[in-house]
Amino acid sequence: MSSDRPLRTAEIIAVGSELLGSKRLDTNSLFLSERLGSLGIELRTKAVIGDDRAGLATLFRAAVERSDVIILTGGLGPTDDDLTRDAVSDVLLLPLEEHPEIITKIEQRFARRGLQMPAVNRKQAQVLRGATVLDNPHGSAPGQFLEHQGRVIVLLPGPPRELQPMMDNFVAGPLGARATKERLYRAQFFVAGRSESHVEELTQPIYSRWRDSDPKIETTILAGPGQIELHLTMRSDDPVRAEATVTRARDELIAAVGPDVFSKDGRHMEQVVGDLLKDRGLTIAVAESCTGGLLLSRLTDVAGSSAWVRGGAVAYSNDVKTLFADVATDLIAAHGAVSEPVAVALAEGIKKKLGSDIGIGVTGIAGPSGGTPAKPVGTVAIAVAVTGLPAKVRTFSFPGGRAQVKFQSTQTALDMVRRMVG
Amino acid sequence: MSSDRPLRTAEIIAVGSELLGSKRLDTNSLFLSERLGSLGIELRTKAVIGDDRAGLATLFRAAVERSDVIILTGGLGPTDDDLTRDAVSDVLLLPLEEHPEIITKIEQRFARRGLQMPAVNRKQAQVLRGATVLDNPHGSAPGQFLEHQGRVIVLLPGPPRELQPMMDNFVAGPLGARATKERLYRAQFFVAGRSESHVEELTQPIYSRWRDSDPKIETTILAGPGQIELHLTMRSDDPVRAEATVTRARDELIAAVGPDVFSKDGRHMEQVVGDLLKDRGLTIAVAESCTGGLLLSRLTDVAGSSAWVRGGAVAYSNDVKTLFADVATDLIAAHGAVSEPVAVALAEGIKKKLGSDIGIGVTGIAGPSGGTPAKPVGTVAIAVAVTGLPAKVRTFSFPGGRAQVKFQSTQTALDMVRRMVG
Repeated sequence: MSSDRPLRTAEIIAVGSELLGSKRLDTNSLFLSERLGSLGIELRTKAVIGDDRAGLATLFRAAVERSDVIILTGGLGPTDDDLTRDAVSDVLLLPLEEHPEIITKIEQRFARRGLQMPAVNRKQAQVLRGATVLDNPHGSAPGQFLEHQGRVIVLLPGPPRELQPMMDNFVAGPLGARATKERLYRAQFFVAGRSESHVEELTQPIYSRWRDSDPKIETTILAGPGQIELHLTMRSDDPVRAEATVTRARDELIAAVGPDVFSKDGRHMEQVVGDLLKDRGLTIAVAESCTGGLLLSRLTDVAGSSAWVRGGAVAYSNDVKTLFADVATDLIAAHGAVSEPVAVALAEGIKKKLGSDIGIGVTGIAGPSGGTPAKPVGTVAIAVAVTGLPAKVRTFSFPGGRAQVKFQSTQTALDMVRRMVG
Repeated sequence: MSSDRPLRTAEIIAVGSELLGSKRLDTNSLFLSERLGSLGIELRTKAVIGDDRAGLATLFRAAVERSDVIILTGGLGPTDDDLTRDAVSDVLLLPLEEHPEIITKIEQRFARRGLQMPAVNRKQAQVLRGATVLDNPHGSAPGQFLEHQGRVIVLLPGPPRELQPMMDNFVAGPLGARATKERLYRAQFFVAGRSESHVEELTQPIYSRWRDSDPKIETTILAGPGQIELHLTMRSDDPVRAEATVTRARDELIAAVGPDVFSKDGRHMEQVVGDLLKDRGLTIAVAESCTGGLLLSRLTDVAGSSAWVRGGAVAYSNDVKTLFADVATDLIAAHGAVSEPVAVALAEGIKKKLGSDIGIGVTGIAGPSGGTPAKPVGTVAIAVAVTGLPAKVRTFSFPGGRAQVKFQSTQTALDMVRRMVG
């Protein structure tokens, strides 16, 4: 097989018994999948196997027979359990050769911490004959890059902070040089306040046409917590035309969905609202009950948010609602703590108390207990008060458990702010 | 091969092109791994493949040749992309037969929503000859359970809420009946305030002995956010002896680590603190700055927390610290907002203001901006005031980005409460 044949397909094999348990997922594959996709190389399958030399050899042999690029992650450590080098050597019938300069580097690494290199670490200097050594500034295990009978075989360390820079600095370039000229182009947007099926109903008649167009555009709908995401991808060898085409396609879908679209650049809701407040020079304050601080926490997840978040109160009990947001006790007595008048009073009270331009009030029943027939678990009243506008208030009925009710309440409150000041 | 041979090894194949992208992980395998482990069946490998009939057939053929149980998840929908049934039929040379009673059920499912079953859904009634149909009350795709030449082949739908009850109700029983008498026994505990390497140093001399004992106990150390987790597992056919052995082993490790152990039953920190406050009949209030509401949100993530959480304030700006927690302005001027005296004033101020037994004050620099040479990003002062005890305060230097600094600050604050009132 000529080594000039372009690389089109890839497989990932993640090695490590801990990845077969119930606690850990192979998240490296998400990163690698994204990078391979960008290079126009299609990921065909990915597998996880324990520290099992014969089992790994079987998987690797099958991968070499059917795919152009095989990336193995993990199993490059110094212990007896680290078998990736050996299994690859077994299958390709290539000897492992000790590279003295790797030993020197590992020794220096230990010396910097005032330690001697344990003898077992010599194993990490074993390199497949013909492979290029990939430097690892973040750990002791170097990677390896091997061109073998037209295939490319890459060995990367398991820890993401070691694997990711190695992929970007040493692997993506040589892979890209041997890939086709085709690259993957992407666009996306996020929707709030609509169900997945409703978004599908609005968009499917449009995007289904693109499946048969040339070049075709693939559209995927994902339901994330509190938002529906649409992802468009297109393969092309013409960057300018592809960017224009995929952007135009995205904008056609956005027009069909309308103002429920809150992000077309990957920003999450708290970032969208933060950027909006920053642009408009507006400040915000929150009085929240059932969300228990999560709304303020999401607002302050945004870097620089001290410029627009004044602060707020978590008013879990009624007297705290009165103390921190001046909610009248007879209002609570008349309507109940979970009611639209109390939500409005929380929003207006905290806005006035902290002198902000916007106030949010949230009161509801997150569950699992506390529900009644009239106000079951998931009932949440949300109010937004903006200086110069009439306050808005709505009562929602959110499905799911305590965490879901909390999160959806914060997402909805932020979305109400976006719609009012956007 | 006799069908009486016990089932020892398993593989999982997840089917779906969306699982090969950069947005979705196969989380079903965590659940299945845990269930198989409990039955004493060892998961040897797991793989993900796109909607590719030939590729799936190749993977499945290899799995059938080497493992006793093969679980395929996903690809049971009604569309052309749903190929799991066909690929299994190809490999086992078993025909698919249409079961009219499945069609009736799917028709009824649609009728309940006032809809007619689309013709494509007939495909979901195709069953491998000899397979048992597994009812799916949560979706239209039934599962299938097939005993074939000593192997067990299971087809499960992809959505977790359909897959999980099907595994527990219809699959675990028959698998367990054919597994060995050996089962997996587990114990665990969580540690706060120590590094992974420190915990390893304390425990490794003990647990390394158990690797060669009979039956052997495996110990895994995982570094989670804000905590180190130790997981012990042991394989045995004697439930009483195994439970006693693994519990004794866990307690020996706990004794070696000491009071940094905060949980030995899987409860997370906020639950441990909540249970402690509930037991002692103590209430709590929080005044938090750089954590922005996350500490209150974690405290209120615990069901029933309205009984012990009074509420609190998110005091992002200095005047809010004064307004809601009565922090003296000249104290802030003298020491700076990020200082131990201000943390103590926040804790004592909010405790007094809300009449709680415990007050927490948090003030710091979450980043990415706002750091100074004297107080770099990650500097956080945390104080806990408890009625009848002198207030405790410490300054920490947390690594990582904004989200990491926020989370570690809340974990540390909760851990300080635990140590003071525990």
